[in-house]
Amino acid sequence: MKIIKTIAEFRKLRPKLTAPVGFVPTMGYLHEGHLVLVRRARAENPSVAVSIFVNPTQFGPKEDFAHYPRDPQRDLALLEKEGTDIVFMPSAEEIYPPDFNSWVEVGKLAGKLEGAARPGHFRGVATVVAKLFNIVQPDRAYFGQKDAQQLLVIKKMTADLDMNLEIVAVPTVREPDGLAMSSRNTYLNAGERKQAAVLYQALNLAQKLYSGGEKDAKAILKQMTALIQQQPLADIEYISIADADTLDELDRVKPSALVSLAVRFGNTRLIDNVAVG
Amino acid sequence: MKIIKTIAEFRKLRPKLTAPVGFVPTMGYLHEGHLVLVRRARAENPSVAVSIFVNPTQFGPKEDFAHYPRDPQRDLALLEKEGTDIVFMPSAEEIYPPDFNSWVEVGKLAGKLEGAARPGHFRGVATVVAKLFNIVQPDRAYFGQKDAQQLLVIKKMTADLDMNLEIVAVPTVREPDGLAMSSRNTYLNAGERKQAAVLYQALNLAQKLYSGGEKDAKAILKQMTALIQQQPLADIEYISIADADTLDELDRVKPSALVSLAVRFGNTRLIDNVAVG
Repeated sequence: MKIIKTIAEFRKLRPKLTAPVGFVPTMGYLHEGHLVLVRRARAENPSVAVSIFVNPTQFGPKEDFAHYPRDPQRDLALLEKEGTDIVFMPSAEEIYPPDFNSWVEVGKLAGKLEGAARPGHFRGVATVVAKLFNIVQPDRAYFGQKDAQQLLVIKKMTADLDMNLEIVAVPTVREPDGLAMSSRNTYLNAGERKQAAVLYQALNLAQKLYSGGEKDAKAILKQMTALIQQQPLADIEYISIADADTLDELDRVKPSALVSLAVRFGNTRLIDNVAVG
Repeated sequence: MKIIKTIAEFRKLRPKLTAPVGFVPTMGYLHEGHLVLVRRARAENPSVAVSIFVNPTQFGPKEDFAHYPRDPQRDLALLEKEGTDIVFMPSAEEIYPPDFNSWVEVGKLAGKLEGAARPGHFRGVATVVAKLFNIVQPDRAYFGQKDAQQLLVIKKMTADLDMNLEIVAVPTVREPDGLAMSSRNTYLNAGERKQAAVLYQALNLAQKLYSGGEKDAKAILKQMTALIQQQPLADIEYISIADADTLDELDRVKPSALVSLAVRFGNTRLIDNVAVG
């Protein structure tokens, strides 16, 4: 496994990689959700590259960039075990030199839900992913469905800007109680962690109501809200039932509608989603 | 010479091209200025691709998109003669499908001079060039120095977003009286055409004053303005003496400062520039 820290080194190495190249961009502090992406990339491509980069431009000024969990030594050991060929772990200065000032903006989609809650977030995501795609030049890139809107934004960017690669969506990996795996779960104390299982319970409730014939979004949202509010530590930021392509809110729920939510437990903000159908 | 109209066709062809690939993006209605770019690309690369695409997103709502001169048959004959390998001439719908909504924004640089006069212009330029780079995947792309700010914006985008190609700047080609070649020169009537020579005269005056020891930008701008105003059909939009990298206006002129101007003759807007030194 090669560890690459600069763009110039990656450029030198890139022509030697056997195509197709599978790529998993991460912010590190890897968990099973990331490793499933790596395994999928490993199964589908002769070359697998993983990046570890906590991207400052996707964090708001009051968000958790400085405190985001980091453990590169553990990450490298896990990636080695999965048979990763290359790990790209640049410094912030390597990716954002002092006069950096070019941005990729994905309109509309990026302004809803997470984008409304976190202004500038998807500009940072789209920009760093565009940069990583240009550095790594992968044939396939793997993203988790847990960050459903991120996946949509990246698919849209890739299509609109004619980036020559395939975006592969991988199902969310969950803890035994249903909590979606996330590096941020480590922020939760024992009480919060226990109550956080309600996110998936609420998503399952939406699915169950929909399967039972309920098509009125408001009615479903109301029951989800009531369920989550039974957990005293849960503070709902949004619950949404939206068109899976446009993220426009729906009145009548239709097949593959995206049910998504953001809920705070103390200072920890968790997101999750399911597609009903 | 292959003529390609769709992105899918280009993708199919691309792996068959011998590297390095030289690329000249144009809006067609080719003149000697374009052909010099093509010849340079031809001399430096085994494969040469030229695009012809009048990019709607770089024109303002009151600008000349609808009237921009077009003559694809003549363009193709000229490109054939220069030994072009591939001409990419997509439709507007191919490049901008109905729900298109991802943009490349180059901050700061893109807000000055032409960007201030033409809001959104460089967003359109950067976006279409990023798309064309992703489609053509050139090793080198050739741009004329006549559009000095465009060149800066594209170099900045390429560097900031880690696009893996070289941007080659090619000196401006001029008519015998010094007027920079431009597809828009065809808009000029005989009287305007004659007076338009004053743009280059004013740029030469700046160079002459600078070489003679004048370093005060205001003094140089004043004499340039007076010279241009001697032509009754000339309507000055801006004259600028700016840092060649940042485009910040200079008080004291320094080596390689960019002297640039935009002047209207009737409805026709002409731009030109020189680097003093």
